[in-house]
Amino acid sequence: MMYFFGGDETEGDAGMRDLLGGKGANLAEMAKLGLPVPPGFTITTEVCRYFVKNGKLPDGFEEEFRKYLRKLEEVTGKKFGDPKNPLLVSVRSGAKFSMPGMMDTILNIGLNDEIVKGLAELTGNERFAYDAYRRLIQMFGNVVMGIDKNEFEKHLEEMKKKRGVAFDSELTAEDLKELVEIYKRVYKEHTGEDFPQDPEEQLRRAVIAVFKSWNNPRAITYRRLNKIPDDLGTAANVQTMVFGNLGEDSGTGVGFTRNPATGEKELYGEYLTNAQGEDVVAGIRTPMPISKLKEENPKLYEELRKVAELLERHYRDVQDFEFTVERGKLYILQTRDAKRTPLAAVKIAVDMANEGLISKEEAILRIDPENVVKLLQPVIDPSAKVDPIARGLPASPGAVSGRVVFSADEAVEKSKEGPVILVRPETSPDDIHGMHASVGILTSRGGMTSHAAVVARGMGRPCVVGCEELQIDEERREIRVKDIVIKEGEWITIDGYTGNVMVGKVPTIEPQIKGELETLLRWADEFRRLGVRANADTPEDARRAREFGAEGIGLCRTEHMFFHPSRIPSVLKMIMAETPEERREALAEIYEYQRNDFYEIFREMEGLPVTIRTLDMPLHEFLPKREELRVEIERMRARGEDEEKIKEKERLLRRVEELYEFNPMLGHRGCRLGITYPEITEMQARAIIEAACMLKKEGKTVIPEIMIPLVSHVNELKDQKEIVKRVAEEVMKEHGVEIEYSVGVMVEVPRAAVTADRIAKEAEFFSFGTNDLTQMSFGFSRDDYGKFIEVYKEKKILPEDPFTTLDQEGVGELMRIAVERGKSSNPNLKTGICGEHGGDPRSIEFCHRIGLDYVSSSPYRIPVARLAAAQAALKKLEGTVRKDV
Amino acid sequence: MMYFFGGDETEGDAGMRDLLGGKGANLAEMAKLGLPVPPGFTITTEVCRYFVKNGKLPDGFEEEFRKYLRKLEEVTGKKFGDPKNPLLVSVRSGAKFSMPGMMDTILNIGLNDEIVKGLAELTGNERFAYDAYRRLIQMFGNVVMGIDKNEFEKHLEEMKKKRGVAFDSELTAEDLKELVEIYKRVYKEHTGEDFPQDPEEQLRRAVIAVFKSWNNPRAITYRRLNKIPDDLGTAANVQTMVFGNLGEDSGTGVGFTRNPATGEKELYGEYLTNAQGEDVVAGIRTPMPISKLKEENPKLYEELRKVAELLERHYRDVQDFEFTVERGKLYILQTRDAKRTPLAAVKIAVDMANEGLISKEEAILRIDPENVVKLLQPVIDPSAKVDPIARGLPASPGAVSGRVVFSADEAVEKSKEGPVILVRPETSPDDIHGMHASVGILTSRGGMTSHAAVVARGMGRPCVVGCEELQIDEERREIRVKDIVIKEGEWITIDGYTGNVMVGKVPTIEPQIKGELETLLRWADEFRRLGVRANADTPEDARRAREFGAEGIGLCRTEHMFFHPSRIPSVLKMIMAETPEERREALAEIYEYQRNDFYEIFREMEGLPVTIRTLDMPLHEFLPKREELRVEIERMRARGEDEEKIKEKERLLRRVEELYEFNPMLGHRGCRLGITYPEITEMQARAIIEAACMLKKEGKTVIPEIMIPLVSHVNELKDQKEIVKRVAEEVMKEHGVEIEYSVGVMVEVPRAAVTADRIAKEAEFFSFGTNDLTQMSFGFSRDDYGKFIEVYKEKKILPEDPFTTLDQEGVGELMRIAVERGKSSNPNLKTGICGEHGGDPRSIEFCHRIGLDYVSSSPYRIPVARLAAAQAALKKLEGTVRKDV
Repeated sequence: MMYFFGGDETEGDAGMRDLLGGKGANLAEMAKLGLPVPPGFTITTEVCRYFVKNGKLPDGFEEEFRKYLRKLEEVTGKKFGDPKNPLLVSVRSGAKFSMPGMMDTILNIGLNDEIVKGLAELTGNERFAYDAYRRLIQMFGNVVMGIDKNEFEKHLEEMKKKRGVAFDSELTAEDLKELVEIYKRVYKEHTGEDFPQDPEEQLRRAVIAVFKSWNNPRAITYRRLNKIPDDLGTAANVQTMVFGNLGEDSGTGVGFTRNPATGEKELYGEYLTNAQGEDVVAGIRTPMPISKLKEENPKLYEELRKVAELLERHYRDVQDFEFTVERGKLYILQTRDAKRTPLAAVKIAVDMANEGLISKEEAILRIDPENVVKLLQPVIDPSAKVDPIARGLPASPGAVSGRVVFSADEAVEKSKEGPVILVRPETSPDDIHGMHASVGILTSRGGMTSHAAVVARGMGRPCVVGCEELQIDEERREIRVKDIVIKEGEWITIDGYTGNVMVGKVPTIEPQIKGELETLLRWADEFRRLGVRANADTPEDARRAREFGAEGIGLCRTEHMFFHPSRIPSVLKMIMAETPEERREALAEIYEYQRNDFYEIFREMEGLPVTIRTLDMPLHEFLPKREELRVEIERMRARGEDEEKIKEKERLLRRVEELYEFNPMLGHRGCRLGITYPEITEMQARAIIEAACMLKKEGKTVIPEIMIPLVSHVNELKDQKEIVKRVAEEVMKEHGVEIEYSVGVMVEVPRAAVTADRIAKEAEFFSFGTNDLTQMSFGFSRDDYGKFIEVYKEKKILPEDPFTTLDQEGVGELMRIAVERGKSSNPNLKTGICGEHGGDPRSIEFCHRIGLDYVSSSPYRIPVARLAAAQAALKKLEGTVRKDV
Repeated sequence: MMYFFGGDETEGDAGMRDLLGGKGANLAEMAKLGLPVPPGFTITTEVCRYFVKNGKLPDGFEEEFRKYLRKLEEVTGKKFGDPKNPLLVSVRSGAKFSMPGMMDTILNIGLNDEIVKGLAELTGNERFAYDAYRRLIQMFGNVVMGIDKNEFEKHLEEMKKKRGVAFDSELTAEDLKELVEIYKRVYKEHTGEDFPQDPEEQLRRAVIAVFKSWNNPRAITYRRLNKIPDDLGTAANVQTMVFGNLGEDSGTGVGFTRNPATGEKELYGEYLTNAQGEDVVAGIRTPMPISKLKEENPKLYEELRKVAELLERHYRDVQDFEFTVERGKLYILQTRDAKRTPLAAVKIAVDMANEGLISKEEAILRIDPENVVKLLQPVIDPSAKVDPIARGLPASPGAVSGRVVFSADEAVEKSKEGPVILVRPETSPDDIHGMHASVGILTSRGGMTSHAAVVARGMGRPCVVGCEELQIDEERREIRVKDIVIKEGEWITIDGYTGNVMVGKVPTIEPQIKGELETLLRWADEFRRLGVRANADTPEDARRAREFGAEGIGLCRTEHMFFHPSRIPSVLKMIMAETPEERREALAEIYEYQRNDFYEIFREMEGLPVTIRTLDMPLHEFLPKREELRVEIERMRARGEDEEKIKEKERLLRRVEELYEFNPMLGHRGCRLGITYPEITEMQARAIIEAACMLKKEGKTVIPEIMIPLVSHVNELKDQKEIVKRVAEEVMKEHGVEIEYSVGVMVEVPRAAVTADRIAKEAEFFSFGTNDLTQMSFGFSRDDYGKFIEVYKEKKILPEDPFTTLDQEGVGELMRIAVERGKSSNPNLKTGICGEHGGDPRSIEFCHRIGLDYVSSSPYRIPVARLAAAQAALKKLEGTVRKDV
C-alpha cells in the first residue's frame, strides 16, 4: 500500500511504475542508487483505484500511513507537527505515464500558526517561513477545497500595489504575515471552516485531493487524447521538503550529463544561489553556468559531477536532472532522459557506443531517422531574428532565400542573375524547368503530396506549399498577405522545416554529412537487411544519391526527360501525330536525348542496378489546358483577330478535347500508353539497351531493370515485355554485346496486388508505387483530398496522412498480399518500394517486416532510409525500442 | 483405328467424340438409333495425330482401311471402283470441337473416266454423272493438290458465257463432259500428273489431305482464338454418297422437330424435289414447307415425323436435321440442337419440362438469361425495312422512335406533345430530368458504362451511346452524318439491341411477360438461393421492380432526388452555404421532399427491405462548369456588360473553383460529404426514419437499410453510424414507434475490401458497389477508359469489358476476400451486390459462388437475375452445363 524511498530504507525501484507511478518509481530508483533524494514514501496506485471506486480509503490505510510518517520522521530526524523541529512535506501525483500539469501538487504541508513561528526561528528567516505558509494556504485552498487561485492572488497583487513593489520577493516578513491572515480569511469565507491546523489532517486531505484529481476533466481529456487507460490511477508521493532559498549556502539548479546542444561530454547546466525552482522560472536573477561552480564552489561541482556520472552510467543515456542545495547539502529531486538537438543526439549515441556505455545497436536505435534529414539541409540560423509573415505546409526540408518569380520561364531567366524562389498558386509538369532553376518553391495551394511537394522533395529543393494566406496576383506580379505586398524580384526566405515564409534574406547554416553521422550510418549499413536505393531522374540526382550511400536507383522516371525545353517541339509532334509512322518519326527525334540521359545515369551508377520506368504520363499534360484555350479563342474573337489563326487554335482545341479526361489519374497513362502506342516503348527500350551496350563496350558494368508502370493485368506486362525483349535482342545483336537486364512491374494498382501470383510469373521484380496504390486503395485523389483531409484528421478518422506514412492496415495489407502471392509463384521475385513512403521510417520498418528486398527514396532521404532500415532489422532481432530523443 | 457406322454394324456412339470427332460420333449415334444414315466409317483422331507427328500413316492402316472399305461395300451392296454398280463416298473432317469451315471435305470420290459412264447408265442421268465427276476433280484438285479453285471455276464461267446461260444447272450433259476434259487438263497443268483414275488412291489421298488440313493456317488461327488444343487432331469420315438430284422421287431438305421461331410443337422445315443441298443454297427454286408433304407425299411426311420424334426423344432437345431422299429412300445426314429465337427457347424449355421430356432444372439451365431481357423490351418489327444511318454501342435494350431534341429542358417541354429522343454529345447529372422525359437517349460519345448508358439502363430507357459518326451541332440544332442532316423535331428510331440509328419511325413490337416465361421464372424462384433485389430510385421504379419479382431494393440512390427542378434552388443554397447553420437551413427546405420520396418508395416495397444510400455526389456537379463560366465571363466583358453582373458571375466562379477537382471520381464524395457536412446525413437519416415511422403508424411494415457509401476506413462508418443512430433515436421517440433498421456499407473502395474484418464489426451489411470497385481496382476511369479499351480488346489484353462482366480474377478476388474477412468478424453480416454487374448472369454466378445473400439489378433485369441465380444454384448442385441455345 505504501513504499518508502530514501537511503537504505528504499523499498521500490524503477521497475514498479505500475504501482508507484513514474515519479515514485524513479525517486526510489535514485534513492537506491545512493543519490541524495529527499526521503518520503509513495502511496500506491492501488489506493487511488480503491478510492475512485469506493469513495473512501481502504481498511488499514490509517495504520500504514502513520507507520510511514513515523519512519519518515525517523529518517529525517524531524517531527511532523513539532514547532521545534518541523517536518514539512509535499504531496505530488505521479501516474504510470507522465501527464504533465494534469494533476495536482501541494507543497509545504505541515505548517500551521504555531509551526510557522518555529520554522522562522529555526531558519532564522521569518520571511521565508511566512512565505511558505502563505503558499500552503493558497495551494491547499485551491487543490483541496476548490477555491479559485485568483481569490488569493488578488490580495497579493493588492499588497504589492499598496507597498509600491513589483516582485513578490520585495515584500517583507511583516507583509507576508499580514497576507497569511488575509489568506486564512479568504479560506474561511469560501469554505465556512478554518484552515486546518492539524498537520496530519492537512496531509490526509491532500492525499485524497491528489487521488480525486485523477478524474478531473483536464486529466480525463488528456488520457483520451493520449490513449492512456482510465483505470490505472495515480500514486501519491509524500516527500520531505527541501529549500534552496535558505541563504547563500543554498540554491537550486538544472544539470545535463552532456551538452544537449552539441553533444560534448561535459557537465552542463545552470545554478542559482539562494533560490527555489520557481525563482529560476520567474527570471528575476540570471543563473550562472554550472561550469563556473568549478571555481566558485568546487565541492558542489565535484558532487554534481559524480552524480552526473552515476546517473548516466545507470540510465545509460544523457540525463537532465534537477537539484537543490539546502544549507550546503545537495538533494537530487528528479532525473530524466535529456532532450537534445539532432546534432547532439547523433554525437552522443556514437560517443556512448565508442565509450562502451551502450552497444552499436542501441546507438542506432536511439536516433530518430527523421532527424538525420535535419542535419543535411540548410537551416535558419538559430541566432537570427525570424518574423514569419505566413505559414504553409513544410513540404520539403531546408531553408533558402531567393528573389520572387512568378513563372517557370522567368525562373530560368532570372536565376542566371542569382537565386530565385518560384511562387505559384500550384505547379504542374510544365513548371519542372522552372522548379529546377529555383532554389526553393512556394505555393498557395496543394498538400504534402501535391505536385510541387513531390517534385521539390525529389529534387531536394526546399519547398513550402498550401500557404493559403498568400494572395498571388500573377497579373500585377505581386504577393499580398495581410497588409504586406511583395513585388516580383524582392527577396524572401522560406523554411521547409517549419513552413514559415519570411520577407528578406534570413541567414542560414549549411548542411554537413561527416563525423559521427558518417560513423552512425556506416554502423547502420552493417545491420540492415533492406537495400537502399534512390529515386533519381538525372545524372546529378544519381551522383548525389550515390554520395549519400544509395545502392542503386529504384525509380528513374522517364517523363521528366521529355519536359526539357529543347525536346518539347518533338514531344508535341509526337502527341499530334495521327499515325504510328508520324509518331515514330517524332520519337526518333527524342531518341538520342533519351539514350544520352540513360548513358549518363548508367555511368554514374556503374555496377549498381538502375530501375527505369517506361513512360507514365498523360499526353495531354503537354498541351495547353482546355479552358485556357477556350478563353483565348473567345478573346481572339472579341478582338476580331485573323480567322485563320482562330481556326488553328480551334484545331489545337479539338486535339486537347480528344485527349481531355475526367479523371486523368485513372486515365490513359502508365503502360496503357505503351500498349496503345507501342512505338513509345520501342523507342525507350532501344534507348536503354543501346546506352547499356555503349557502356559495356567501354568496359563498364550496367544493370538495367525495366519497369512497366500501372500494370493491372498480367497481359499488359506480357505485351510490353514482348516489345522490350524484341528490341533488346535487336540492339544487342547490332552492338554484339550481351546486357543482363530484367523486366518487372510497378505495383501501384490494387488489382495487380491481388493477382500478383499471375503477374509474378512474368515479372522479375515488383516495385510498389505506394503513392498511386494509396490513391486507388482509398479512392483518394492526392490532388483533391485537401478538401476533406483536415476534417478527417480533426475527427480522428484517419490516424495519419496516408500519403506521408504508409497505411499498413489497408495499403500495406495489399502489399503483403502481393509479396506473398508473388513469391508463391516466383520464388526469385525481387521486391522493393519506390513510392514516397520509401523514405519514411515507419513505412520502411513495415517494408522490412513484409520481406521486401529494398526501399527507394529521394536522394536526400537516403541516410534516413539507411538508418531506418537498420532500426527495422534491429527491432525485429532484439525487440528493443528506440528511446525518445 | 477405324469405326463403322450404319445400321447394326455401328461400332461407335456419341460418347466417343475424343476418338471419332463430333461428326463421326454423332453419325454413329444416329445409326445406332436406327436412323437411315448413309453408312460409312470413321478414321480416328489417333491416326491424324500419328500422321501429323510422323508424316506417315501408322502401321496396319492399309489392312484395316481395306477391311472397312470391303465392309462398306457389303453393307451398301455396291462396289468401290465397279463401273457397273459404283460405290461413291465423301471424305469429311470432324474434330472433337466443331470448327465450321476450317478444314476440308471432298465429295464423289470413286469416280473416274470409266465409272462415270457406268454411273450415267445406272442412273439414266448423264448430266448428273458428269456434273458429279467435274465436282470431284475440282475438289480433289483444290484440297489434295492445292490448286486454286478459281483455276477451275473460270472455265465453268466461260462455258456458261459461251452457252449464254446464267446457272450451272442450265448446262447440258455435253457441256459438262467438255468441262470434265478441261478440268483434267487444268489438273495436269498444275500438278504434272494425270487425275488419278484409281478410286482407292483417290480415297487414300483424300484422307491424308483431311489430316493435313488440321494444320492449315486457318485452322491453327481458329484454334488459337477458340482456345482449342493443337494436339487433338481430327477424325476423317468416309461415307457413302447419296443423291437427291436423281429425279422427281429424289430430293433434299431441312427439318426442325419444333418451330424454332415460335416454339410450337410441330414438324417444321423445307423440302426441295430433285435437288442437292447446294441447290437450296443457290436459291434457283423455292423449297416447299415440309407441312405441304402431308398432302403431296404423306409417306415421306410420316417417315420424317417419326424421325423427328425419335431424334427429339433421344437428344432431349429440339433438333435441326438434314435429310436427302434418293429415289424414294430417306437418308438422315446430320442432326444438331436447333438454334431458336428467345421466345421459342422459353416455350420449348417449359413445354418439354411439362411433357416430362426434361426436368424443370434442365429447362431453367437451357435458357440464356440475357435472352430474357429481349422478351421484355420492344424490338424492331422483323418485317420492317431497316436502313441504319449510323451505329453506336447498344447501351440499353429496346427499340423506340421519337422526335429529336438537343437538351434536357427541351426534352421535358417537347415530350408533352409526344415521344422525344434526347440527343447529346454526352449526358451529365444535369440531364436526368430530360432523360426521364425522353423515350430514348442517343449520344455521340461515351462507352457502355458512360453516364448516359448507366442511367438509361437504370431507367429502362433504350439507349445508344458512342455513336461517333454523328456530328451533333447544338447551335444549328441538327445532326449531321455523312450527307444526311436531321433537324430538331424530326423523327428518328434507335435500336438499343444493335446500336443502330434510323431516320424516321421504324415499327416495333411490344414486350410481354406471361405464359411460359412466367412459368419459367416461377420455377427459377424455387431453385435459387440468391435473393434478387432492384436498384430503384423512384416509386415508379420500385413498383415496376416488384412486378418483375424483386424482393427488395438493393440500392436506392438519393442524389437523383436532389436533381428535381423544384429542388434545385434549395440544393444550390446548400452548396453555397458558408456555415453549418446556413446549410442546415437549405437542407430543411429539401427535407420534406426527401421524406415524401422515401415514404412513397417504402409504401411500394411494403414488407420488403429497402437499402438507401446516403448522399454520394460531388457538390460541384450542381454548379455550372468552370470553363463555361470563364468563357461566359469573357463574353460578357467583350459585350461590355454591367460590371455588377460580371462580378456576380465571378463570385460564382470562385465557388466553382473552390469545388473544382482534378479527379472528381476520387474526390470529395460518398461518405466524405456526410463526414465534412454532417448535417446532410442528419437530414437524410431523419427523412428515412420519419417516413418509416409514418408508415408504421399506418400499420405497414417497413425495413429500411441505411447504406454508407465509399467507406475506406472503419472510422468513416463509425462517424456516420453515430449520426444515423442518434437521429433515429430522436425521431422514433418523437413518433413513439420503433423501426427495425440497419446500417451497413457500400464496399466499393479496395481498402474496404482488405480491411473488411474491421469494418464488419460495425456494419450489419455489405453491398458491393462493383462499378466503383472496378474503377479503383483497375485504376480505370469509366468516363475515360474509352481511350484505350478498344485497343485492349483488340490485343486481347482483357478478356472482356470489366464494367460489363465482373472481373472475377481481380475485382472478384477483392470481393471474395471481403466476404471471407467480413464474415470472420461478423458471422451475421448480410452481403449483396448493387453494381451494374448485379444484372449480369456470369457475375451473378460468381456472386452465388462466393456466398453473397442477394444481387440487385436494374428493374428491367430482375427476370434475368432470377433466372441466372437459379442457374448458379443448379450448376453448383448438379454440375450440369447449359446447352447453347
